[in-house]
Amino acid sequence: MAAPDDISAEDKLIARFFQPIAIHPGALGLSDDAAFITPPPDCDLVLKSDAIIGGVHFLPDDAAQTVASKALRVNLSDLAAKGARPLGFLLSLALPAGIDDRWLTNFAEGLRSDSVLYGCPLFGGDTDRTPGPITVSIAMFGSVPVGTMVRRAGAKPGDRVFVSGTIGDAALGLAVRKGKDWKLSEAQRQHLVARYLLPQPRNALAEAVRKHASAAMDVSDGLAGDFAKLCRTSQVGASIAVERIPLSDAARVVLAADPAMRETALSGGDDYEIVCTVPAAKAESFRAAAQTANVAVAEIGEIVAGEGARFLASDGETLTFKRAAFSHF
Amino acid sequence: MAAPDDISAEDKLIARFFQPIAIHPGALGLSDDAAFITPPPDCDLVLKSDAIIGGVHFLPDDAAQTVASKALRVNLSDLAAKGARPLGFLLSLALPAGIDDRWLTNFAEGLRSDSVLYGCPLFGGDTDRTPGPITVSIAMFGSVPVGTMVRRAGAKPGDRVFVSGTIGDAALGLAVRKGKDWKLSEAQRQHLVARYLLPQPRNALAEAVRKHASAAMDVSDGLAGDFAKLCRTSQVGASIAVERIPLSDAARVVLAADPAMRETALSGGDDYEIVCTVPAAKAESFRAAAQTANVAVAEIGEIVAGEGARFLASDGETLTFKRAAFSHF
Repeated sequence: MAAPDDISAEDKLIARFFQPIAIHPGALGLSDDAAFITPPPDCDLVLKSDAIIGGVHFLPDDAAQTVASKALRVNLSDLAAKGARPLGFLLSLALPAGIDDRWLTNFAEGLRSDSVLYGCPLFGGDTDRTPGPITVSIAMFGSVPVGTMVRRAGAKPGDRVFVSGTIGDAALGLAVRKGKDWKLSEAQRQHLVARYLLPQPRNALAEAVRKHASAAMDVSDGLAGDFAKLCRTSQVGASIAVERIPLSDAARVVLAADPAMRETALSGGDDYEIVCTVPAAKAESFRAAAQTANVAVAEIGEIVAGEGARFLASDGETLTFKRAAFSHF
Repeated sequence: MAAPDDISAEDKLIARFFQPIAIHPGALGLSDDAAFITPPPDCDLVLKSDAIIGGVHFLPDDAAQTVASKALRVNLSDLAAKGARPLGFLLSLALPAGIDDRWLTNFAEGLRSDSVLYGCPLFGGDTDRTPGPITVSIAMFGSVPVGTMVRRAGAKPGDRVFVSGTIGDAALGLAVRKGKDWKLSEAQRQHLVARYLLPQPRNALAEAVRKHASAAMDVSDGLAGDFAKLCRTSQVGASIAVERIPLSDAARVVLAADPAMRETALSGGDDYEIVCTVPAAKAESFRAAAQTANVAVAEIGEIVAGEGARFLASDGETLTFKRAAFSHF
């Protein structure tokens, strides 16, 4: 009798749930030990990894499809801010006992739908059992023309500061989810909670950022702290007009009812917007490119010599934040 | 007063332990949201991720430096088997409370020394707190000349089957660590345990594999099961002479004392050797290239038409294995 060549349960899991969505030829149907891709000519690769962990970055009862989307989108957001086009990703998945077929089916569907939506195919990865919580680590790679990745460093005095979308919705949405009310309408509640649950990375803005921005980063740990990092890396200061920071209608209602939540909105996490600096001479062109990309951008301030990102309220007061940015440690 | 721009504890951890080892210019000193690399001309990228988890892939009291090395080397082994040269890696690290500076210092030193040894620099990654065990996920990328990644598919009847190094040491080393004795000398014990603790990936053999092999994979989940996968993907069978499978002196002592351990040696995991198939006309050239690379290779059998990898003992009996390969599920 021949040696058994039964397909292992691990291989069966991969074949059943992930092979159908690994449609790029270089993924080899997940039937090999590695994948391959021919990089676009004259491009740099942009490399990023980020993990989300059950009980830390998502709640245990979050829908599996949303967990998959969130894992991908937090990485897609970084690529967008660096001006990069997604090429694909690897998935490293650690699963506790008790994860059932239904969860895996929904998780794979989340990966599939977003990999199509963002043009970012699954190339490979690994699955393991863990005695800990669900851990989803994504390594994502994208491309930019050689030498054009937009960095945190590069902002110069006189550059205009832009931010995409609206700020603070996700942090307020988490508070809503934990029981805060503020007499919001149901639509406003849903808007804020959805912004917490599912990032909307601004990949449509990536090319405009790459062609115009002197520096950029995604806003994932709070605008105040993240923008302070950009200023520090660029060795510049900034003057931000707080009343020009774009807020959703729902966030405006919250801040009108509870002004102390301004700090939560400006220093809470999970915005997944882009903050970037654009030389004054390119600002109009950037606005036009953003409009073409159908992504709202707002000019919120200016880079200045020196250090420190000052957030100025309409009464001229400079805001201070207890905790400028989220940190796990 | 300006908004605070204190460096977060997370950023401090990265700056203290990992920034000093991220010496590639494209890593940007880990001070940005992503890294970049200009891929070599006319190359395909080879992509691989694999994670190791405390209590699953390593024991809680394993030295941090060894944990780091193991995390890197399990991925390096895959690159070697695919014929690829390492370009670099991303690290996704989830840490429970209680990990101290000493552990992180030693872990970073393990990454640093292996990144130098294997020419595989750290490009970036992420750190998170986890309520679960230490989870180290590595995403590694390498390069091969366009179209030359060696796959599991490609073995043809008549091809010779080669394996590098020795087989079974790590599985026997784990048994030794759990208390088995077999009257081994101290040197023999240490040899087996070291083979379990620290893979020795055959990256020196990568170019020889790429230039000669019709199919290849690394042996990480047991020779019997892994080679069966290669045969299945190549849609061929094979005849393997068990007495030609290379064993260390220590493994020979164990198998002489306890013949039942042959199954453990041939179907246990963690070998991190390469099994490959080489067209008969290239076999001598492959042997010479392996000798130049200073990696021992042994011819253990031949690919045949049909299906099933038969492991034949010297008495003509075909071995069967209870569990051909390790699986986490």
